[in-house]
Amino acid sequence: MNTSVKHLTWLPYLTNAAPAGCTSPLQTAQAELLSGLANLADAPTVSLNVDAAMGESWQIIQESENAYTITGGEAGILYGVYRLLMALNAGAAIPQGVQKPFYGLRMLNCWDNADGDIERGYSGRSLFFEDGKLDYDPDRIRQLARMLASVGLNVLCINNVNVRNPAHKLIEEEWLPQVAELAALVRPYGIRLMFSIDYAHPMRHGIQTADPLDKAVQDWWMEQTALVYKYIPDLAGFLVKADSEHRPGPFTYGRNHADGANMLARALKPFGGMLVWRCFVYNCQQDWRDYQTDRPMAAYQHYTYLDGTFEDNVILQIKHGPFDFQVREPISPTFYAMPKTHLALELQLAQEYTGQQIDIYTMPPMWKELFEQLPAETVMSIAAVTNLGRDDNYTGHPFAAVNLFSYGLFAWNPATDPEEAVRLWARLTYRFDEANENTLVKMLMGSRRTYEKYTAPLGICWMVNPNHHYGPNPEGYEYAAWGCYIRADRNGVGIDRTETGTGYAKQYPEEWCRYYSDLATCPDELKLFFHYLHYEDVLSDGRTLIQRIYDDHFEGYEEVEQMAETLKTLPLPSPDKEVAAERMERQLINARNWCDIVNNYFCRLSGVEDAKGRKIYH
Amino acid sequence: MNTSVKHLTWLPYLTNAAPAGCTSPLQTAQAELLSGLANLADAPTVSLNVDAAMGESWQIIQESENAYTITGGEAGILYGVYRLLMALNAGAAIPQGVQKPFYGLRMLNCWDNADGDIERGYSGRSLFFEDGKLDYDPDRIRQLARMLASVGLNVLCINNVNVRNPAHKLIEEEWLPQVAELAALVRPYGIRLMFSIDYAHPMRHGIQTADPLDKAVQDWWMEQTALVYKYIPDLAGFLVKADSEHRPGPFTYGRNHADGANMLARALKPFGGMLVWRCFVYNCQQDWRDYQTDRPMAAYQHYTYLDGTFEDNVILQIKHGPFDFQVREPISPTFYAMPKTHLALELQLAQEYTGQQIDIYTMPPMWKELFEQLPAETVMSIAAVTNLGRDDNYTGHPFAAVNLFSYGLFAWNPATDPEEAVRLWARLTYRFDEANENTLVKMLMGSRRTYEKYTAPLGICWMVNPNHHYGPNPEGYEYAAWGCYIRADRNGVGIDRTETGTGYAKQYPEEWCRYYSDLATCPDELKLFFHYLHYEDVLSDGRTLIQRIYDDHFEGYEEVEQMAETLKTLPLPSPDKEVAAERMERQLINARNWCDIVNNYFCRLSGVEDAKGRKIYH
Repeated sequence: MNTSVKHLTWLPYLTNAAPAGCTSPLQTAQAELLSGLANLADAPTVSLNVDAAMGESWQIIQESENAYTITGGEAGILYGVYRLLMALNAGAAIPQGVQKPFYGLRMLNCWDNADGDIERGYSGRSLFFEDGKLDYDPDRIRQLARMLASVGLNVLCINNVNVRNPAHKLIEEEWLPQVAELAALVRPYGIRLMFSIDYAHPMRHGIQTADPLDKAVQDWWMEQTALVYKYIPDLAGFLVKADSEHRPGPFTYGRNHADGANMLARALKPFGGMLVWRCFVYNCQQDWRDYQTDRPMAAYQHYTYLDGTFEDNVILQIKHGPFDFQVREPISPTFYAMPKTHLALELQLAQEYTGQQIDIYTMPPMWKELFEQLPAETVMSIAAVTNLGRDDNYTGHPFAAVNLFSYGLFAWNPATDPEEAVRLWARLTYRFDEANENTLVKMLMGSRRTYEKYTAPLGICWMVNPNHHYGPNPEGYEYAAWGCYIRADRNGVGIDRTETGTGYAKQYPEEWCRYYSDLATCPDELKLFFHYLHYEDVLSDGRTLIQRIYDDHFEGYEEVEQMAETLKTLPLPSPDKEVAAERMERQLINARNWCDIVNNYFCRLSGVEDAKGRKIYH
Repeated sequence: MNTSVKHLTWLPYLTNAAPAGCTSPLQTAQAELLSGLANLADAPTVSLNVDAAMGESWQIIQESENAYTITGGEAGILYGVYRLLMALNAGAAIPQGVQKPFYGLRMLNCWDNADGDIERGYSGRSLFFEDGKLDYDPDRIRQLARMLASVGLNVLCINNVNVRNPAHKLIEEEWLPQVAELAALVRPYGIRLMFSIDYAHPMRHGIQTADPLDKAVQDWWMEQTALVYKYIPDLAGFLVKADSEHRPGPFTYGRNHADGANMLARALKPFGGMLVWRCFVYNCQQDWRDYQTDRPMAAYQHYTYLDGTFEDNVILQIKHGPFDFQVREPISPTFYAMPKTHLALELQLAQEYTGQQIDIYTMPPMWKELFEQLPAETVMSIAAVTNLGRDDNYTGHPFAAVNLFSYGLFAWNPATDPEEAVRLWARLTYRFDEANENTLVKMLMGSRRTYEKYTAPLGICWMVNPNHHYGPNPEGYEYAAWGCYIRADRNGVGIDRTETGTGYAKQYPEEWCRYYSDLATCPDELKLFFHYLHYEDVLSDGRTLIQRIYDDHFEGYEEVEQMAETLKTLPLPSPDKEVAAERMERQLINARNWCDIVNNYFCRLSGVEDAKGRKIYH
């Protein structure tokens, strides 16, 4: 047993240390199968049957009462082994028929900086970097790769999209030999590396420009990419954040983002690499006095007119909502508007705006709503910003692992039932009796709605402390340059984003535009995202807006109080019990602050008291 | 000429380098007189006549048309020389009769950290420290000492009251030899050093407590103080910030501040040293839901009951207002309430909340109001937080030097006429023709009122960005723990601090309490400090509160526009011209932001438009 592997998250059914020394997913599958079966009381016989043509797909056939055959490509067999072991350990049903991943690239984006810090990281320092260099524990990397492979993820981008010196060296000769060793650690788990690159990288090497139409720039990227693939022939590709939040990009040279992305894609194409280009581009120096500019409209405006002009190995990666991972946003309209482009959905497991792995916030219920609405044709890849770090339990709050686990399941099959995913994680992780398992699952399943209630009212987000993004601050962004204003006044709150307002709703296909624009159909939870309402306006449930705000916030806090009581009853093992208890104390304080501050804010504005006579501090 | 002396501020009538090699103020006086007279076209004959009994006082007698005698103690003669040279150079009147300083200790408090950073410093890095050690240019220190001596200041506390490692070494054997060299540099200018000390210092040396009643603690301070005085026999004393904003202090041990101050005072007394104890003590972990606690009441509550219990070499140093150097505060009531205690007034030259030496903000008009109200009997010393740094011109904005210059004059004579002080500084510094001098003086004299207009309405302060304290943020502190809430709502704004409210006004002597409590006498500029008013309430000038807020903010911005035009017409020398012009661009942006954001904020709350139809962005 390797002590550097701190915690097995949802994998206690395997041996503690991940298999080392394997050179292919098939070998890993064999090793995992061996140790996994050894842990089972009544272990079945399992045969592995390679069918290279199946690639990452797999099929489990029950040959007799206690004998299975897993057929698949090398990676497919590995996924099948993990899934069979999960099912046997959890007493869950074994998926029938050929299991094929819905999304081709199932990516994890780490926002790790070379100094070891993680941007928006809430689980300790980087697993990959420290002190300006690669610095990792091979045993933990293998364990990490095993965690990801066990839920079917296949691409790991190890560095922050905001590439800060010296992370650009990941694609330079100086670092590449060591990076190749890292790639070799995860390769037997079916995982390919990806790097975030600095768009202006050529300018570090004597080239006077980063203009994508400049021959010297193009040649530099061709050569540099070839060098990278010499060391890491299966690199998944590059990830780019350009012209966003002070990052360099094609706009500097009067070029558009197709120019920029295609230039890089052409350098990757000979090696089968993908160029993933983030669409998180907006004016982050907006003047609050400017009521025309509406930040959620930015991605659509910057990209949709370029549809059809991208190389076929370009992927545009789009955040699920038009803002930035708020607790409640409508789906990004850009997903509907680029039928000729390979798109990727970007989720965020890191709980930046959603409790920072202090507050419990389980995402699958939110994803279910999202995937039901997401067009399937052009969204062919998926990415999530990681919630991982060097903490013993990898995710800070032990329950935050449920989001990483479920992300893998949804990335494989977006029709995954959220409660099944959460239950499977809970059972694999804790093996509670049925009553306790039900209690935990129920608490997790309700946690997002609870968080939403005590924080953001009805689609008005951003009432958060600037910079660190934890805790309430109703006007924290109100006069800032980031474009996320709430514009509440004494009469009401909300932004009119219909055609009588900023026109944002018109970016959707007509049916969705009508749906959101019509107060009769727009869901209450998004009413203030799309409409300015008066405090006395009546919502679909018969309550006034102001009363609904008060009710939600009081209820949200009360639900956290109940969660705290529930948590005490769960027979969690140590140290999860202590860690969860300590974080729950902070969640209680946070929820109380949110409740009181938001209610106070709107009470001062509206002058309306709570109809139920509860205490509003003013 | 020594190139390390960058700028002569108001001393161009002297030679560039300050005299070196002098060992007493008398020698310095002789050297300065020589070089000062050499610079005059029609130099008079000046005799110096030492009368040790006069100490720091001096008298200039005109013996004939072009001959003067200066009589005084050693330091007094030095002050007299500077004052005579100023008068001769400026064509100003020579003060008649014996000139005796009003305040005994005329202190400058530097908030310099050992790492070279200055807390709330806007003029570059520290003149004394860098990289965790003493590090200074002797020529600049002499020039600094000369600047201070030329306006009669006599105590220089070189380190931040928030004593951070390793600044505590200033009183340790390791640093003392070098500190003594620094003391020797300023001594010939009549300036004594002072150190901010770490109240918990003994705990760095194996003592388990900092309890002031503990014998080991008392003995440690006795010994350590004796050591310090071995190296610096004329040290002015120690400055302490205790039990404030997370600093350690006597409260930790259940003792009061007299216990703490007296323990240190007894260690200093054998050497004639003073113990200066800051009264900036309040609850900085207040819950905004707590409407009883009122931060401006804190100093009075913490100290007045201790009146009469302090050693006679203890000085309590009290900020001029009850909050923290806001643009407009009433005088601190604590000044009236401790008749048996030696008090010091604390001003802040560093423009923390008042434009950060970007915006022009000339303080003497504010001080005039203050000194007219300050009781003379117990306030016997004075201190100011410095606005100095390593910038070529010492004060960032060249005009900010007027505050340091005038501070010296007011510290010597609080009845100083503010315009005369400003004019004398302007004339010595720039030697403009009369029209330009008048223009500059008028601009400076009006700058505080202008700043007040575009920032804080009628005594409501704190509508500022937290942490760095530059720029508007109406609710920036509204839900924070610092106790500075504005509590505006849809009906009105202001805090009732009369007896119907928090009762703060009752801390004043009865006549002042009545004055502030009665809306008929309370000056408009402080109405919202003492009263909650409705937006439609009518002020003493006949305008409604909301219209007054709008008018002030629009006028404030327009006045900055005029200042910008005025500034262009002034024949400033380079680089002052360029520095002032660049900062004025930033002041214009700042004033525009303040004007628009504060007006927008109150318009959203009140629903009232500007009666004059000016643009309010909402």
